[in-house]
Amino acid sequence: MDGRRSKLFTPGPVEVPRELVEAAGEVVHHRSAEFRALFGEVRLGLRRLFRTGGEVAVLAASGSGAMEAAAANVISPGDRALVVRSGKYGGRWEELCLAYGAKVDRIDVEAGDAVDPSEVGRRVREDRPEAVFLVHSETSTGALNDVEAVARAVAGRAAVIVDVVSSLGVHAFEMDGWGVGLAVAASQKGLGLPPGLALVALGPEARPWVERARSPRYYFDLRKYVTAAQEDQTPFTAPVTQVAALAAALRKIEPLEENLIRHARLAQATRAGCRALGLEIFPTVPSNAVTVFRVPASLDAGALVRVLDEEFGVRIAEGQGGLKGKILRLGHLGWVGEQDLVRLFEALEGGLRRCRHPFEPGRGVDAVRGALARPAGDGDRGP
Amino acid sequence: MDGRRSKLFTPGPVEVPRELVEAAGEVVHHRSAEFRALFGEVRLGLRRLFRTGGEVAVLAASGSGAMEAAAANVISPGDRALVVRSGKYGGRWEELCLAYGAKVDRIDVEAGDAVDPSEVGRRVREDRPEAVFLVHSETSTGALNDVEAVARAVAGRAAVIVDVVSSLGVHAFEMDGWGVGLAVAASQKGLGLPPGLALVALGPEARPWVERARSPRYYFDLRKYVTAAQEDQTPFTAPVTQVAALAAALRKIEPLEENLIRHARLAQATRAGCRALGLEIFPTVPSNAVTVFRVPASLDAGALVRVLDEEFGVRIAEGQGGLKGKILRLGHLGWVGEQDLVRLFEALEGGLRRCRHPFEPGRGVDAVRGALARPAGDGDRGP
Repeated sequence: MDGRRSKLFTPGPVEVPRELVEAAGEVVHHRSAEFRALFGEVRLGLRRLFRTGGEVAVLAASGSGAMEAAAANVISPGDRALVVRSGKYGGRWEELCLAYGAKVDRIDVEAGDAVDPSEVGRRVREDRPEAVFLVHSETSTGALNDVEAVARAVAGRAAVIVDVVSSLGVHAFEMDGWGVGLAVAASQKGLGLPPGLALVALGPEARPWVERARSPRYYFDLRKYVTAAQEDQTPFTAPVTQVAALAAALRKIEPLEENLIRHARLAQATRAGCRALGLEIFPTVPSNAVTVFRVPASLDAGALVRVLDEEFGVRIAEGQGGLKGKILRLGHLGWVGEQDLVRLFEALEGGLRRCRHPFEPGRGVDAVRGALARPAGDGDRGP
Repeated sequence: MDGRRSKLFTPGPVEVPRELVEAAGEVVHHRSAEFRALFGEVRLGLRRLFRTGGEVAVLAASGSGAMEAAAANVISPGDRALVVRSGKYGGRWEELCLAYGAKVDRIDVEAGDAVDPSEVGRRVREDRPEAVFLVHSETSTGALNDVEAVARAVAGRAAVIVDVVSSLGVHAFEMDGWGVGLAVAASQKGLGLPPGLALVALGPEARPWVERARSPRYYFDLRKYVTAAQEDQTPFTAPVTQVAALAAALRKIEPLEENLIRHARLAQATRAGCRALGLEIFPTVPSNAVTVFRVPASLDAGALVRVLDEEFGVRIAEGQGGLKGKILRLGHLGWVGEQDLVRLFEALEGGLRRCRHPFEPGRGVDAVRGALARPAGDGDRGP
């Protein structure tokens, strides 16, 4: 890497705090007592984070690997799967279910909208799928699905499998309390670690499905992870330095309640800043992980992203696929600080000026500062 | 991690040199021009390392994940696979082939022996498998299989798929020259990186098999990696810090020829040291990655490993499965230095003394020093 690097305000990967970089430490042997003690601590921390009495598998993989692990351990060829297509990551569930031979029923959600839980309930009663797949915080649109209400509407008639990749540690998530069977996450989001580590949480009721599934799997066979975990071990060579960093991230994220409030406040300030600049928030129910705004007709999204990266030292994310050029995405998950957010808006104003986009100078930064200056209140856990 | 940590002389994970730890650097976005430039460099370095004009997929996964990627992209249910069971990792190929529904034909190799290439040729002609799976350096026994001769014996009648996890960068390996279709490796061996990154090299002729295979796969679908690589990209969020460290490791490993000679010299010195202590080398054709010796009847292997770890600050590896208690394994792959090896033997002598095992004090260390003092010669690339 050369020296000059933009600060990341992308919805993952995120900036990694120095202390978490250093926590990776030196390589210890994965079969040592030292590693076992560390992994025991990680297992407990992960159960607290996912709010489950089940087990959380830790894998070297990207978040998509975790999604595949979930799909491969539930879907048998010919199974019916109901997929909530809320964006790119909802669509990834569909691709995975098809790859594993499922008959896929779809609920198409308008980009930026959240799924209607009663629609999921109705479709589950009609289509009788074995499993329902959805995304909690849809990183591609910035929309938040109400997983609790969806799980209530499913009412145990199907396995509920949720991508919490960008919501874990950001939004309240109650795996066991809501009746979620499997949930998948990754290191480079709310945990504030580099990419490369994936998490698959298995709720108490997930085990029978995993036993029943007939899809081929080996590295992603969750039974191996659950069995090895009983001895504070992983079935394959553990990514030991990443697990050490994960242990530190799990310590840093507690108390979880405060972490959720912190993200809610950053998200509120970001939305206030966008609105003050005349930028319309895209999703109807916005996630606290990423703020997505519509690109005004007069603005070239690609040019703004480039200018911010090259001249202002911040990197934000464009829309993906059909949303490219139509939306822009500001990530504020992980360990983004309040001053970082102010600097992001200073840069954003500078970038808009360079792109000759009209706005009232200083209003975005002022709105962010104003929102952050307010004391935390009851509404600060967000929707 | 607490402060005290034994130095690793295990056959992976290995010690990571400080410069490679630091090369991981800060997180850059995986879709940035900066990452693309880095990944382009990595692709070239990997092709030089595997000696292939094909493509090398870089995945966040353990070595077993890379093995699964190879199996899932070649095996369709009902295919015949010939597996060389030379030890634990040969056995893993069998497990993977079975998981993907192959009809498995086996060649059982006595633990510590290398496979007879003419036997592979004969079985390929008789059984007509779609693919032959073997391990180059069998980490569990310390034996080296002659992949070149095996591939020559197969003579293009089947795909040759090789685990080079502990031989890559340690032993000569000529992917295209020998006619190997797929080869898999991992970061925590000869490359001297932490575990978590896996490599799957596809030789020029591998593409049609990968297209033909009908097993479900998504994260491990090598076609996605080959396509993305054409734009110096990965299909899923790349483990960016690990890729940056990989770039540095690939620079450090060149010139490759010198690296092979360095490993051969360390291996020769280790074998000389063992013999001088009256420890019999276990494999008939020893790998230069790991030296495996038989545990004398009067010695408690577990006790020696424990004493070395707790009192002498070095960690060596026990035998696995049925070989536990019967062999011990000394890893000298990656960036083990000559002085490290001398210190390993000082510790080993100390440990043997503590275990009241009879030997002539100083002879092991002297033999190592003597072997290392000899100038490099023609025989130093090893078998």
